[in-house]
Amino acid sequence: MKSRGSAFVTNTTRPWVDDSTVALFTDLYELTMMQAYHAEGMTDEAIFSLFVRRLPRTRNYLLACGIGAAVDYLERLCFSDQDIDCIASLGQFNDDFLSWLRSFRFTGTVRAVAEGMPVFANEPILEIRAPIAEAQVVETFVMNQINVATILATKASRMVVAAEGRPVVDFAPRRMHGTDAAIKGAHAFAVAGIQATSNVLAGMIHGVPVTGTMAHSFIQAHDSEMDAFRAFNRLYPGTVLLVDTYDTLAGVRKVVTLAKELGEAAKVRAIRLDSGDLHALSVAARKILDEGGLGHVNIFASGGLDEHIIADLIARGAPIDGFGVGTSLGVSDDAPGLDIAYKLCAYAGKGRLKLSKGKPILPGSKQVFRRIENGRARGDVIARNGESLAGTPLLLPVMKDGKRIPGALPDLAHAHEHARKALGQLPEEIRAIRPVRTPYPVTISPALEVYQAEVARTVCS
Amino acid sequence: MKSRGSAFVTNTTRPWVDDSTVALFTDLYELTMMQAYHAEGMTDEAIFSLFVRRLPRTRNYLLACGIGAAVDYLERLCFSDQDIDCIASLGQFNDDFLSWLRSFRFTGTVRAVAEGMPVFANEPILEIRAPIAEAQVVETFVMNQINVATILATKASRMVVAAEGRPVVDFAPRRMHGTDAAIKGAHAFAVAGIQATSNVLAGMIHGVPVTGTMAHSFIQAHDSEMDAFRAFNRLYPGTVLLVDTYDTLAGVRKVVTLAKELGEAAKVRAIRLDSGDLHALSVAARKILDEGGLGHVNIFASGGLDEHIIADLIARGAPIDGFGVGTSLGVSDDAPGLDIAYKLCAYAGKGRLKLSKGKPILPGSKQVFRRIENGRARGDVIARNGESLAGTPLLLPVMKDGKRIPGALPDLAHAHEHARKALGQLPEEIRAIRPVRTPYPVTISPALEVYQAEVARTVCS
Repeated sequence: MKSRGSAFVTNTTRPWVDDSTVALFTDLYELTMMQAYHAEGMTDEAIFSLFVRRLPRTRNYLLACGIGAAVDYLERLCFSDQDIDCIASLGQFNDDFLSWLRSFRFTGTVRAVAEGMPVFANEPILEIRAPIAEAQVVETFVMNQINVATILATKASRMVVAAEGRPVVDFAPRRMHGTDAAIKGAHAFAVAGIQATSNVLAGMIHGVPVTGTMAHSFIQAHDSEMDAFRAFNRLYPGTVLLVDTYDTLAGVRKVVTLAKELGEAAKVRAIRLDSGDLHALSVAARKILDEGGLGHVNIFASGGLDEHIIADLIARGAPIDGFGVGTSLGVSDDAPGLDIAYKLCAYAGKGRLKLSKGKPILPGSKQVFRRIENGRARGDVIARNGESLAGTPLLLPVMKDGKRIPGALPDLAHAHEHARKALGQLPEEIRAIRPVRTPYPVTISPALEVYQAEVARTVCS
Repeated sequence: MKSRGSAFVTNTTRPWVDDSTVALFTDLYELTMMQAYHAEGMTDEAIFSLFVRRLPRTRNYLLACGIGAAVDYLERLCFSDQDIDCIASLGQFNDDFLSWLRSFRFTGTVRAVAEGMPVFANEPILEIRAPIAEAQVVETFVMNQINVATILATKASRMVVAAEGRPVVDFAPRRMHGTDAAIKGAHAFAVAGIQATSNVLAGMIHGVPVTGTMAHSFIQAHDSEMDAFRAFNRLYPGTVLLVDTYDTLAGVRKVVTLAKELGEAAKVRAIRLDSGDLHALSVAARKILDEGGLGHVNIFASGGLDEHIIADLIARGAPIDGFGVGTSLGVSDDAPGLDIAYKLCAYAGKGRLKLSKGKPILPGSKQVFRRIENGRARGDVIARNGESLAGTPLLLPVMKDGKRIPGALPDLAHAHEHARKALGQLPEEIRAIRPVRTPYPVTISPALEVYQAEVARTVCS
């Protein structure tokens, strides 16, 4: 089952996924299974459920994200002549299948939780109902996109919680896993409440505010730190000056000198600390600024921050007004991967599951009910779709017959607002950044349990 | 310094980086600094060094990768009218700068270590020498690409070491951080010795063999496991059958039955185990296959593998012929981030550094010499460029005057061969997957130390 890729290298010259290649961002086995379904005449409807099997040890919840990216893809997916030539060159596909691919479109129905919804282990984030070949071939891309966005939104929401209302901005793109992670990450971060991104393209694509200060190289390239400060201040109103290149507190004193020298022409909005003991330095810098008449100049901190360091700085009263976070946010360093799965739950009207150890599947179409009492989420029930239980149903239709349902996908501002509200409803210890001993309660409805046992019996026989 | 991104959202409709948008994959501060350099007439040559400050705790070496992607970008980089409109819409850039951007090209010189070269803390992976604005604006993209490729190649090389010659294949794309990581990862993995990727597009772009078996959904969709096996075997010569959907050993017995039933028409090359106790199951499966006359059918294992689990399975004699790895490989779960830096080392002919705590910079252009004795690397020296020391110099020219040097960048096969050879030269305990107590010896040449002290004195004055 191994095919040489080199036969078709010349079909693309650009090493990235774009409109002209996205259909090929699928695993070979999706295509071989698809051809087998086609050959066997298996065209019945399948239901696939996308969920995370268990939460990472360091996570009390996940912030589901990437639904919009998945829907964009499902709506556009088709195979161009070039795609089909590439697939043909793999040497495993017959003309009947290849010609059928030419008219392929995703025609299914999709239900999903809202972008930015907190979810838990085994809860469906998205459910696809479509002819089995259609539902199968989209697996790789849909998983990849929801995976990265959910990992990054979840991490970001922890940073936002830790910062207790102070702005947190994304300085991560240079240290992330490729360009797509940076672009999709900026959106996921914004859903979670990160206030701005350093990356111009990410800001442009998603309408996220773009921000930045200055690099050490700018200071270093000038023969004196003061010259560098002066030049930047001249050009940029509301500038942020980076003070830690040589001697942090001497740098802060230069900012005071500059302000005195320029009077009205001084435009410094903040200083940035990027190294050393951020608590001690922020206290000392605040004092220097205040005594220099720069009480209005903010202190912005960056450099190796994560949610625990941010929480600690705040707990110790560091006078820091905002945080720039890089690596830890950008790779979700304490939980970079998810045990995300996309599993067949029903085919041709029959519930399906598997019995592999440690990898259970809840059969059939499902719904998740979240019980909210006095503004607090008390627990979720994973139920069969169609059950009427107490609580708010989390899975809502987003696509019908291969088209997005107008208004079903929120824009960024609404997604952030939903996320903020839904996170606010979680029990405080679940929202907190320390891992809890008692996880948020998620149960399976009695009807779903009965159905699971029933389906298990049929596959065992 | 915060700009609304939403003003120009409509300029692009596709949420990814491609040829038409890659120039904007930069941080806002690169552009503001660039404009400042331009305004100040600072057009002198800068030298920037890209390196990793310290190795992750779980890494004894890094496999440098992504040089080719960086060079591709540097050679093509330019700002289209649309890019310039976008930058203008940020409201911080003047016409003089914007019109200068129109004719911008990268005209610099680049030296780099070979793709797939093992490197250590503080050793330059790549050095850019160019007018400062050019060297500055490329920071975000070049770091992002070398970061992801180096993280992933390093992790992959550990999997390959652990597998002791058995093939390891990449099943990770669905669980990676976005599409770019999956595409660039497939290349980095192949440099490190991973034998194939599951992803069609990644294989196509890089000429990496594409491989795949079948998913549980294929088994589940059929009314019996045997029907599913039969259908797949009929279509695909050399097929791999997934046996753990319901009862693993019963699944293996069905493969034997199928082979007896079909005789010559049986095309099964391997079975795949994807869950449970892989050691016990592989032993039992091997016995069933052998007793059933299927001694030629291989056993392929997947499901939550990492290098430690692979090494343990092999140490315990599990009869597994190949491994498919997903999440752990795809996100480098035990070391998902690098403290990667891109730092100004010289400007206008003068060495530059900074003195921020814990973030030293070695000034000036540098070279790394690796001393090889009896086929073993004994230690590296980071020296001033121009010094003649014992050992092999690792940094070689790859671009001159903005153009790649013909033949300087190896193709994938050669990069893999280089990586294999250079890794083989490392001391055995450095190549091993357990962290060492005594790191590989890297020293600073006396001349570079003297120069560093000299430059430090000038910036302190």
